[in-house]
Amino acid sequence: MNENKRHLIENLMADYSAAIDSKDLERWPELFTEDGRYRVTNSEDYNQGYQHGAIWANSRGMLRDRISALREANVYEEQRYRHVSDAARLITEDEQNGTITVSSNFIVVRTMHTGDTQLFASGMYIDRIKFQDDSALFAERIVVCDSQKIDTLLAIPL
Amino acid sequence: MNENKRHLIENLMADYSAAIDSKDLERWPELFTEDGRYRVTNSEDYNQGYQHGAIWANSRGMLRDRISALREANVYEEQRYRHVSDAARLITEDEQNGTITVSSNFIVVRTMHTGDTQLFASGMYIDRIKFQDDSALFAERIVVCDSQKIDTLLAIPL
Amino acid sequence: MNENKRHLIENLMADYSAAIDSKDLERWPELFTEDGRYRVTNSEDYNQGYQHGAIWANSRGMLRDRISALREANVYEEQRYRHVSDAARLITEDEQNGTITVSSNFIVVRTMHTGDTQLFASGMYIDRIKFQDDSALFAERIVVCDSQKIDTLLAIPL
Repeated sequence: MNENKRHLIENLMADYSAAIDSKDLERWPELFTEDGRYRVTNSEDYNQGYQHGAIWANSRGMLRDRISALREANVYEEQRYRHVSDAARLITEDEQNGTITVSSNFIVVRTMHTGDTQLFASGMYIDRIKFQDDSALFAERIVVCDSQKIDTLLAIPL
Repeated sequence: MNENKRHLIENLMADYSAAIDSKDLERWPELFTEDGRYRVTNSEDYNQGYQHGAIWANSRGMLRDRISALREANVYEEQRYRHVSDAARLITEDEQNGTITVSSNFIVVRTMHTGDTQLFASGMYIDRIKFQDDSALFAERIVVCDSQKIDTLLAIPL
Repeated sequence: MNENKRHLIENLMADYSAAIDSKDLERWPELFTEDGRYRVTNSEDYNQGYQHGAIWANSRGMLRDRISALREANVYEEQRYRHVSDAARLITEDEQNGTITVSSNFIVVRTMHTGDTQLFASGMYIDRIKFQDDSALFAERIVVCDSQKIDTLLAIPL
């Protein structure tokens, strides 16, 4: 992984957090490739190889639909997320397909409109990142939460 | 933003956290330019364009005064902060003025002298950084907290 | 600290967190030199210069023994850690010995098998890192926790 790709990955990950945390949700699907995959699961299910997820999508269109639904339900107004994550760690580089797989640790803190703040989720991102010209997009982001409890509470992308 | 500037920013941000977290508070104002600005606000007020803040200063001298006051009040002895923050994300680069504006996510954890630890604050830093020779200083740091509750609790710089 | 060493340090720190958080504990001692030192202490004791620690080891062999004991006691199965840490900050570079000392902030979140998640620990790593050929290992990692309460609860390496 050269320096340039490293910075593209860093920027992509920061853009992702910023889009969600600043409620600029419409920018979120645009960080994925056209056939980009997204999935929220938990460590137990992930380690056992289950392919399902509490949230999942296999195209940018599905991600856009999800955001439209959230906007209509107005669920996002009541809360605010804050992501903090580690530096990305190289897993594999596939030079033929122009993709790099990395992982990183994250925690998400949630602040309600009352002002109360709590630790909301923690886990690991496993990202397959696609490079084209001088940009980087998620070909896949798997969100592996530490807790299986998260699933039922989850409305907004992590 | 070249590699050298990136590292200067990283170091500046780490020095900032280290000064506060290790209670070496007198080092804190020295990380700002002579006319450096500092402000703690919350997302609601920030998004509405309010310029005030729960804490604010527009010179290094005011920051020094604040630290003197804290030392006299002895309020700092009772608690310890720990900052964890993301990598900085480039917002704009102003080559003419030799400044770069970046943002980053942070959380602060507070440990009381009893040993109890809790999540204290989360939010975003918006930093205008001034480069001179081979050093970097804050021309401005705006601390945008996620919760509006933070204001009344806040004595120590975030 | 050149770019290559910076990345080796980043990778080492990420490998450390990943080994513990994914419960791949046997990889943990292998990140230390043969005579690597490891110690968990708290800020008060550390600042007063005490050399002891709630957990300590002065060789890779001792670290391996610790993991064997944890595996036998089966204590690890009940919980899962998640580390998030800052970028490393250069303290000193000793070119003669091929070592670099850095510090970084961390927090650890713990998820129980019930799915409950809480902030478990926060503090600072102080690392002396040894470079050899194209790899980096911990010659020493001191874990300085913010709370002195952590000691009695601690079974798994931080």
